[in-house]
Amino acid sequence: MAAELERVLTSLLREPVKVTAAGRTDAGVHATGQVISFRSAASFPFDRLAAAANAELPDDIAIKRAGVVDENFSARFCAVERAYVYAVYNEAQRTPLMSRWASHVWHQLDPAAAQAGARYLIGEHDFRSFCGSLPQSGPTVRTVSALNVTRLGPLLRIEVRADGFLHHMVRTIVGTLLECATGRRSPSSLKDVLEARQRPAAGPTAPPQGLYLAGVRYRDGFDSFAEPPVFGRCLAP
Amino acid sequence: MAAELERVLTSLLREPVKVTAAGRTDAGVHATGQVISFRSAASFPFDRLAAAANAELPDDIAIKRAGVVDENFSARFCAVERAYVYAVYNEAQRTPLMSRWASHVWHQLDPAAAQAGARYLIGEHDFRSFCGSLPQSGPTVRTVSALNVTRLGPLLRIEVRADGFLHHMVRTIVGTLLECATGRRSPSSLKDVLEARQRPAAGPTAPPQGLYLAGVRYRDGFDSFAEPPVFGRCLAP
Repeated sequence: MAAELERVLTSLLREPVKVTAAGRTDAGVHATGQVISFRSAASFPFDRLAAAANAELPDDIAIKRAGVVDENFSARFCAVERAYVYAVYNEAQRTPLMSRWASHVWHQLDPAAAQAGARYLIGEHDFRSFCGSLPQSGPTVRTVSALNVTRLGPLLRIEVRADGFLHHMVRTIVGTLLECATGRRSPSSLKDVLEARQRPAAGPTAPPQGLYLAGVRYRDGFDSFAEPPVFGRCLAP
Repeated sequence: MAAELERVLTSLLREPVKVTAAGRTDAGVHATGQVISFRSAASFPFDRLAAAANAELPDDIAIKRAGVVDENFSARFCAVERAYVYAVYNEAQRTPLMSRWASHVWHQLDPAAAQAGARYLIGEHDFRSFCGSLPQSGPTVRTVSALNVTRLGPLLRIEVRADGFLHHMVRTIVGTLLECATGRRSPSSLKDVLEARQRPAAGPTAPPQGLYLAGVRYRDGFDSFAEPPVFGRCLAP
């Protein structure tokens, strides 16, 4: 994503552009609320940057809007909260219309059991057990401000908000909560998973296609949150 | 689609299977309500056919359910009405999350103007002007029983119901009605388009990715209609 944006912005602005993204999106992961920032000395009508860049960007990347901000703004370092949303299609038979936008679980899921497990993760904790590759430096403590599991028709929707996330943290939280939702794991075992402080204590890493970086909130109150279209809410008139 | 289904069903049932589909789906066109039929002498637990076939079918095809019907049933010849639904994403900037599920029109669309044009097409007419490749034989008269244009948030939804459709008929109807919706064409010109009885009189063929074969209705009242997920209705709890 960053490489494609840099290629197109460098070409449009006729100067080397290096972008900073607010949140990670691994291969197969979507973003409805990604925020990027970059420095530019170009005299470009930035209100028309989205349209100009979208004409050059590949089909799977688009800019919703662009604007000029304070020169000290960093999409990454000024963010105070990130929101990820995960979609699970929970029907007996998979559907091609969802295969890229939700992971499929045929086993009947109980959102209340997943929510009961989720409440152990809310707050400030060492999330080392939910971390794929450990960071080269720095703590593995993060503060989860919200973690909600709801059913919307055939879909389970899991929303996680935190000040920051470790590698594969959302997908590992989801994989572990889905074990609660199928009854394989007791909700209270989440307490032990946190305390173990090692990756094998948690459940599997949920597949990437259900994950959306849905929004980033900043100190000044700006919030890029946009509901993933798979939940149909953006379509309400 | 038919070739993949025949390959998988032939393998599962251990006998050559030839399928008959209710409605055409060109490359890039989706189906939420396709119906197929085939003859089989195999002793197979057909209530488990969907799960068994879906395990072998490619990601972009899935069977929702299967069952045994009267031996004279034909998915194609017993159908009395087909319903196609077309999705247009009508925002200034395209979105990658819709690129495979709706066509994108940035120009502000007026659904009332499209609906005003649509009413000239309802009823029994010679739809030769809306036909891509003429049938080798038989009439080009079809009966459109319903043609509704509505706005749902950022999407325009066009539903067409008829006893049958000519080649590219839905996509040409949509392309022509979108000319009404942008103001390029007057709604009343649809009357002239029908009377011209030649393809150049109509508008362009709308792109395939917005089109869904949404349902097929049969003499006995069975109706396979399923709303395309892009409209979010299937997700209502």
